[in-house]
Amino acid sequence: MALDTISFISDFGLSDESVGVTKSVIWAINPRVRIVDITHGIDAHDVRAAGLALARSAQHLLPGVVLGVVDPGVGSTRKAVCLEVGDGQSFLVGPDNGLFAPAIAMVGGATAAWILDNDEFHLPGIGSTFDGRDVFAPVAAHLSNGVPASAMGTPIDPALLMPGILPVAQTDDAGAIAAEVLWIDRFGNVQLNVDPSAVAGWPAVRIEGDQLSRAALAVDTYADITTGSIGALVDATGLLSLAVDRGSAAEEMGVHEGDQLTLTATEVGGRPIAVTLGPTQVNPQR
Amino acid sequence: MALDTISFISDFGLSDESVGVTKSVIWAINPRVRIVDITHGIDAHDVRAAGLALARSAQHLLPGVVLGVVDPGVGSTRKAVCLEVGDGQSFLVGPDNGLFAPAIAMVGGATAAWILDNDEFHLPGIGSTFDGRDVFAPVAAHLSNGVPASAMGTPIDPALLMPGILPVAQTDDAGAIAAEVLWIDRFGNVQLNVDPSAVAGWPAVRIEGDQLSRAALAVDTYADITTGSIGALVDATGLLSLAVDRGSAAEEMGVHEGDQLTLTATEVGGRPIAVTLGPTQVNPQR
Amino acid sequence: MALDTISFISDFGLSDESVGVTKSVIWAINPRVRIVDITHGIDAHDVRAAGLALARSAQHLLPGVVLGVVDPGVGSTRKAVCLEVGDGQSFLVGPDNGLFAPAIAMVGGATAAWILDNDEFHLPGIGSTFDGRDVFAPVAAHLSNGVPASAMGTPIDPALLMPGILPVAQTDDAGAIAAEVLWIDRFGNVQLNVDPSAVAGWPAVRIEGDQLSRAALAVDTYADITTGSIGALVDATGLLSLAVDRGSAAEEMGVHEGDQLTLTATEVGGRPIAVTLGPTQVNPQR
Repeated sequence: MALDTISFISDFGLSDESVGVTKSVIWAINPRVRIVDITHGIDAHDVRAAGLALARSAQHLLPGVVLGVVDPGVGSTRKAVCLEVGDGQSFLVGPDNGLFAPAIAMVGGATAAWILDNDEFHLPGIGSTFDGRDVFAPVAAHLSNGVPASAMGTPIDPALLMPGILPVAQTDDAGAIAAEVLWIDRFGNVQLNVDPSAVAGWPAVRIEGDQLSRAALAVDTYADITTGSIGALVDATGLLSLAVDRGSAAEEMGVHEGDQLTLTATEVGGRPIAVTLGPTQVNPQR
Repeated sequence: MALDTISFISDFGLSDESVGVTKSVIWAINPRVRIVDITHGIDAHDVRAAGLALARSAQHLLPGVVLGVVDPGVGSTRKAVCLEVGDGQSFLVGPDNGLFAPAIAMVGGATAAWILDNDEFHLPGIGSTFDGRDVFAPVAAHLSNGVPASAMGTPIDPALLMPGILPVAQTDDAGAIAAEVLWIDRFGNVQLNVDPSAVAGWPAVRIEGDQLSRAALAVDTYADITTGSIGALVDATGLLSLAVDRGSAAEEMGVHEGDQLTLTATEVGGRPIAVTLGPTQVNPQR
Repeated sequence: MALDTISFISDFGLSDESVGVTKSVIWAINPRVRIVDITHGIDAHDVRAAGLALARSAQHLLPGVVLGVVDPGVGSTRKAVCLEVGDGQSFLVGPDNGLFAPAIAMVGGATAAWILDNDEFHLPGIGSTFDGRDVFAPVAAHLSNGVPASAMGTPIDPALLMPGILPVAQTDDAGAIAAEVLWIDRFGNVQLNVDPSAVAGWPAVRIEGDQLSRAALAVDTYADITTGSIGALVDATGLLSLAVDRGSAAEEMGVHEGDQLTLTATEVGGRPIAVTLGPTQVNPQR
């Protein structure tokens, strides 16, 4: 069992030494492990955003250990945990605060879990404020060295882990979808919590929100969006997304992450939204 | 032929998982390849800025594959390409939108090129919006594994590739140089599209632009610039640059990337601008 | 003697190619060396901030070479230096401007030092503006290849190196501590230049500054801070730090790095500040 990669996500940012120190701690324990930075640009304490980023990444991550540190409750009674998925193919190490829940749900749940209460595998540390450096990183490094997860602490039932709170889109009797803005990427594209199959065959989508009513034409790709209009397409992680041509759809529509939108079919222009279904599809609501 | 390094430049930013996922895709195909991040901080869709950054970097990059993803036209009819330089010493993989043109021009042009139309070496992907992950990264990884570029698709004449649009400084009959601000670095230094040989021997340079008329004294290094004055020097990539002492010359002069400036010789102070010529000089206009 | 890691800190930022080019230079000289990015997010020219970040990192860095490039005096008469610590366990390479002084002081001082005046180990470079790429990076890479530091240039007495200017907290006869804000991290926690032993046993600390008078209760960890109040705790690097619950203490108190604060014992609530003493403690003032 080779766990030769640690994929690392955090809200540490890159403006100080936190990421560099954490990696130094890992390589001091396992000099040969590869560390892949998923991102450290999660907004401070934004467990929801980190959980969504992990879910979007999950199908492309290398087998091994995922180290996730977005931990507003450090030092509180929140548990420090290691989750096993795929019967030992990968492990996720971090706080039990719902951070891993969306990614775990995508792969059918955790097959085992442990509370990290064996401090033999922790750094002595200073204070009680940086479990990323003193608890999670060393545990991830020891796992990658082949120390069994069962050595890290007390087993717990995965069903007792903190669930993720992910909004599920609701379709009412009239066919209107109550949706939420999951994510706005750096280009201003607006990802919704909507499986494209829910709008399959709609030639266009009417988007309604607070002081907002716009039609989005179904397109295959950003380049198909005509200037001045909004396009609705299947994005790179398999969810419905709204975009404009070389600009920010979020700014154009005045929407933010977490906003509620109502989607209805409209006859205005465009051709039906094409849906790709299959084992590679990412859909954190499921 | 060892292509054991992939040098990676993009406009993905580091605030989400795009860079981490793209690297995971590469390492899944070639676990041993080294990935060097040139930068991912190019402004969204700024092909010109990325092309200039690549040109500034080119002489220091390791032999191997350059993966460039600044791709506002993803999903459009713009071609996805692989360019060969140095008869196989290095390959550049990305969109055919002029991104590679300045760097390619510096090394005397591409020796061969292919359209990436063999999807055997692509990821199946989701949607058509993330060719960086689904097309360019896997192609770069397979190249680094020793798969020949000719397997990636249909050969095309490099002369048919999209040219880069780089402003060339013009000297008029009176000796005045019509120049452009190529780049403002994070310290506020103002790089011009001017080969220092064009101002060799000038003791000082008068800089004129919109609401701007300032003299810049010729200096060898930032530390030679006296407080309150502007210095003109040969910067680290071999072009003429304007700077102030421990401050932002761009702010001091009120100039931005792309601004037009007129340069004339002036007798005010300083000593002649020294010019370094030789094989290491970088000059993207050539 | 294996110096197989280069730990790299700079003020280059990640928005351009400076970091990528510098790493390419290193790997061209030593393809096998591991480069750990401590951070490149130091504010431009902020030698004090970089010195503090290095001091906070020092005890966790891997043995090897530290490459530090925050160099406002590049091209001036400031010396380029290599410092040896631990009789050859590690080397620090960069400008002699006080950048390394706090970290060096923590390990008991440099055991030897050299001026980097042997340009056999430098890049020819262009201009005189980028010693990070042309001098410090190649020297660090050659050191990691096993070239002895004594080959890099002329030995100098470490006592002649530029000292760091670090504020030392002063306790007056009445027991009031004149302190300074050393660092505000990305979460808004306010690190003071105060060894927690100076406030050991205080149940709470009164913080007074310009238009500021607040009591901070002694807590063990962020999670113990009640909403609306300020907590005083031993932070992850062993210094006294002020924090609020899931928010920015710096914003809450209106303080900035470098601000002067007066600390006095107060009887209001809380329990005594617990102090961890021992070899792992970081205290840059010593």
